[in-house]
Amino acid sequence: MGGDYAPEEVVKGCLLAHRELGLESILVGDRERIEPILQREGFQGRLEVVHAPEVVQMEETPSNVLRKKSSSLYVAGKLVKEGRADGLVSAGNTGAVLTVGKFVIGSIEELERPAIGVALPNPKGKTVLIDVGANVDCKPLHLLHFAVIGHTYAEEILGISRPRVGILSIGEEEGKGNELVKETYPLLKASRLNFVGNAEGRDIYAGTFDVIVCDGFVGNIILKASESLGFAVLHMIKEEVQKSFLAKVGALLMRPALNSFKKKADFTEYGGIPLLGAEKPVIITHGRANAKAIRNAIKVANEFLTHRFNERLAENIKTLIPQEVKARWA
Amino acid sequence: MGGDYAPEEVVKGCLLAHRELGLESILVGDRERIEPILQREGFQGRLEVVHAPEVVQMEETPSNVLRKKSSSLYVAGKLVKEGRADGLVSAGNTGAVLTVGKFVIGSIEELERPAIGVALPNPKGKTVLIDVGANVDCKPLHLLHFAVIGHTYAEEILGISRPRVGILSIGEEEGKGNELVKETYPLLKASRLNFVGNAEGRDIYAGTFDVIVCDGFVGNIILKASESLGFAVLHMIKEEVQKSFLAKVGALLMRPALNSFKKKADFTEYGGIPLLGAEKPVIITHGRANAKAIRNAIKVANEFLTHRFNERLAENIKTLIPQEVKARWA
Repeated sequence: MGGDYAPEEVVKGCLLAHRELGLESILVGDRERIEPILQREGFQGRLEVVHAPEVVQMEETPSNVLRKKSSSLYVAGKLVKEGRADGLVSAGNTGAVLTVGKFVIGSIEELERPAIGVALPNPKGKTVLIDVGANVDCKPLHLLHFAVIGHTYAEEILGISRPRVGILSIGEEEGKGNELVKETYPLLKASRLNFVGNAEGRDIYAGTFDVIVCDGFVGNIILKASESLGFAVLHMIKEEVQKSFLAKVGALLMRPALNSFKKKADFTEYGGIPLLGAEKPVIITHGRANAKAIRNAIKVANEFLTHRFNERLAENIKTLIPQEVKARWA
Repeated sequence: MGGDYAPEEVVKGCLLAHRELGLESILVGDRERIEPILQREGFQGRLEVVHAPEVVQMEETPSNVLRKKSSSLYVAGKLVKEGRADGLVSAGNTGAVLTVGKFVIGSIEELERPAIGVALPNPKGKTVLIDVGANVDCKPLHLLHFAVIGHTYAEEILGISRPRVGILSIGEEEGKGNELVKETYPLLKASRLNFVGNAEGRDIYAGTFDVIVCDGFVGNIILKASESLGFAVLHMIKEEVQKSFLAKVGALLMRPALNSFKKKADFTEYGGIPLLGAEKPVIITHGRANAKAIRNAIKVANEFLTHRFNERLAENIKTLIPQEVKARWA
């Protein structure tokens, strides 16, 4: 029931995933609104519908979300937690999905907190930025865990071997940065990750690192600032173009190239962003997700399962973090 | 002696400022390298040269910078501190200029720390982001001061009346954000600033705020990430364009519009970034600054003087921060 085009586009996305990928969804939400769509599409009775009478609204607080136990989101989270579903896909309120992911589904036992990783585009490939909003105030151990999660994501999902891991800071040299960075640096150095050192803001889109670790406060701001910079740049270029006839013709000729670039640059194009380290895959799609985006999100959730992401992550937490580091934080 | 094209372009920039704006510079550095340039340009004896035998290198630590008392940067800082010069312009190592600005020149007495503010472009105008790198770990009082500095910058230099001030956070509502934001929020609310509330990453380039306050760690990363995103986007668009003949023609037709946009978007175009709240104007130009950029930086330094920026800032610190807030932090 979440997102701007629910339930219509969400249901259609599940049908696409079924038809094109052979993946089954359980549709959780208002049965009276879901069933007619299935009927119209000739799918009645072929996808399970679990009724949930309530809907989480935008801007509901985490505690509200956890109290509203008959919301479609909460019920869906429960289905996952109880093993009746293998993952959660939602186009709803990001904060609410995070809350359900963290507190209803929970993280794998080796981890204290799950984190959101996004694969940001750069001229050479992709860089995983983690965490981008699941954890606001972090301790060094959390950042170390994020590094291992990011490493696993880069290796298993993006296919990068021995990913180069950095910690986001200001200044390249060890010893530069804020208190959190200075305390985390030695932990990363002592780990068996391919830790390269401090990454700076300019490294995020430069392809110099495969994984860049930061707390969710900084990461979320960077992510949102980047999106808004993209919009502002396009808007300002359009304004300049409007001033000249030749430039307008030029823009027309360039449009296919620009669209192709936009597609590459849009990190949600591939199906939303994952809450990594949750017990089961949790994929948060854009609120404006259409059927295709929902289909892609289901595909991504399935990829985490087929790549045995969580098993690999649990192993990596064990093998990449040396005993003495673990002991220091026990 | 700082920057990629020193002393040649720096000296020429000072000559431009003299010829075109009537502004006098004292040239601090290696006399044997500076005099021949003046001679060649027919300016010998018309601009004061103060000899400084040493040069601050890139990546020197702050303590090194402060020990190297005969470097051009340190000597220039001293001239400003002693009142022999009215401001400092440097194309050198940003960290070193900051160090000299903070510890040799110092901040006005009403302030604990100066901060770097940049006026970032957006479709509606400009937004001041402050601090973008002078202060890594901050306390709530520092952020409150940055807000007043940013307010004064927006009002006096950018000509925005009653600038809308926000604090950078994740989530719009009061109570959202990290510990620092949550502690600073009530101080800003109690101030006489036009405090609007939390700003999110997406507000930085949206024109929804005139001043956005953050600690120098977050601000610096955003600034550098934004620059690198700009480069990455241009690079990736170019790659797409290369794939199609029509797109190449289109790009050619659009070039003047793109250049005009680039000029608007380049916040260093106007002459570098100011360390605000230092006792005298300190302007840090890009290391690649050419003569024109140096001229512009001198012009900006002069603007701070003619606008009586520091006097207005000192007044604002007194009038915009209520007594009870000051008392809480005494």
